[in-house]
Amino acid sequence: MKRQTTHPATVVLIHVFCIVYPAAGVSRCFTLLRGVSTTTPLCQGVPGAVWKLGKLNHIAIAVPDMERATALYRDVLGATVSDKVPLPEHGVYTVFVELGNTKLELLHPLGDKSPISGFLQKNKSGGMHHICIEVDDIKAAVADMKAKNIRTLSAEPRIGAHGKPVMFLHPKDCDGVLVELEEA
Amino acid sequence: MKRQTTHPATVVLIHVFCIVYPAAGVSRCFTLLRGVSTTTPLCQGVPGAVWKLGKLNHIAIAVPDMERATALYRDVLGATVSDKVPLPEHGVYTVFVELGNTKLELLHPLGDKSPISGFLQKNKSGGMHHICIEVDDIKAAVADMKAKNIRTLSAEPRIGAHGKPVMFLHPKDCDGVLVELEEA
Repeated sequence: MKRQTTHPATVVLIHVFCIVYPAAGVSRCFTLLRGVSTTTPLCQGVPGAVWKLGKLNHIAIAVPDMERATALYRDVLGATVSDKVPLPEHGVYTVFVELGNTKLELLHPLGDKSPISGFLQKNKSGGMHHICIEVDDIKAAVADMKAKNIRTLSAEPRIGAHGKPVMFLHPKDCDGVLVELEEA
Repeated sequence: MKRQTTHPATVVLIHVFCIVYPAAGVSRCFTLLRGVSTTTPLCQGVPGAVWKLGKLNHIAIAVPDMERATALYRDVLGATVSDKVPLPEHGVYTVFVELGNTKLELLHPLGDKSPISGFLQKNKSGGMHHICIEVDDIKAAVADMKAKNIRTLSAEPRIGAHGKPVMFLHPKDCDGVLVELEEA
């Protein structure tokens, strides 16, 4: 309420958006409202901060023994699993486990500088490494995260293991969870 | 191949199932093949061991501050979140975060004997506590897990936080991940 009082022009702007995009309806207006940083004055009209969270793309699990982990999901639990794929540029082997609505991404270190080696040294049995949630606009999402004081693990989005731009959010700002945002 | 050689009756049984359930087609036959424990002789005809893995129901995240965690997903990331629900019989408060294809289950301790208190003592910032995957027959799934030497955290399925029968698999047998199977 305070924002509307001090910045009356803001309210007008929001209503205009609702009229210009009637097909998007109320939910689109809602998206705009929450997508715009509360630390950025709305009177500046920052459309780049408008973005939308999507579905869970995958849960990444770091495993000390890829063959055993693959056998667990394929032979014991009966899921469909992919072949093991080496991604030397990312320092990991990957195997995907299909669960119908989403997938697990099994990760095992590849090379001496794998980004998951430290995790596996701390978690000898393996464990959940991160979750990946899709966004429709990674640049807008990252700008919004920074404006809302959520730390990111790099200054700009990078190309992730799936060939799409991604950004990792700091676990300390996400309840101890490493959250990856990926542009779908 | 060895199984077929030493137990020829097994192969016949599998083919009969394919004929009896033609609508289910090859995929149903495949489900049977993988659903039956390799340590249980097929010639005993154990239909109770036939079960099917389903979709990811949720990822549970233990959080030290439920209000802050809820605000992260609702106000920062823009997801739809539920109200906070106390579940005293399970020793937790829950908030669900909708992600379209699945959901996050935020957990915070309720009472002195909460099952997640120990986890939060070890993980002060919070973290991923477990994943829950649906199955169509929890009793058959659990019998199969035991036959395949996957340890469970209780002898029999119990009613979980969603009012459905569940079973937790031991993290040491699942690459450090606490896996909950829930009958959908």
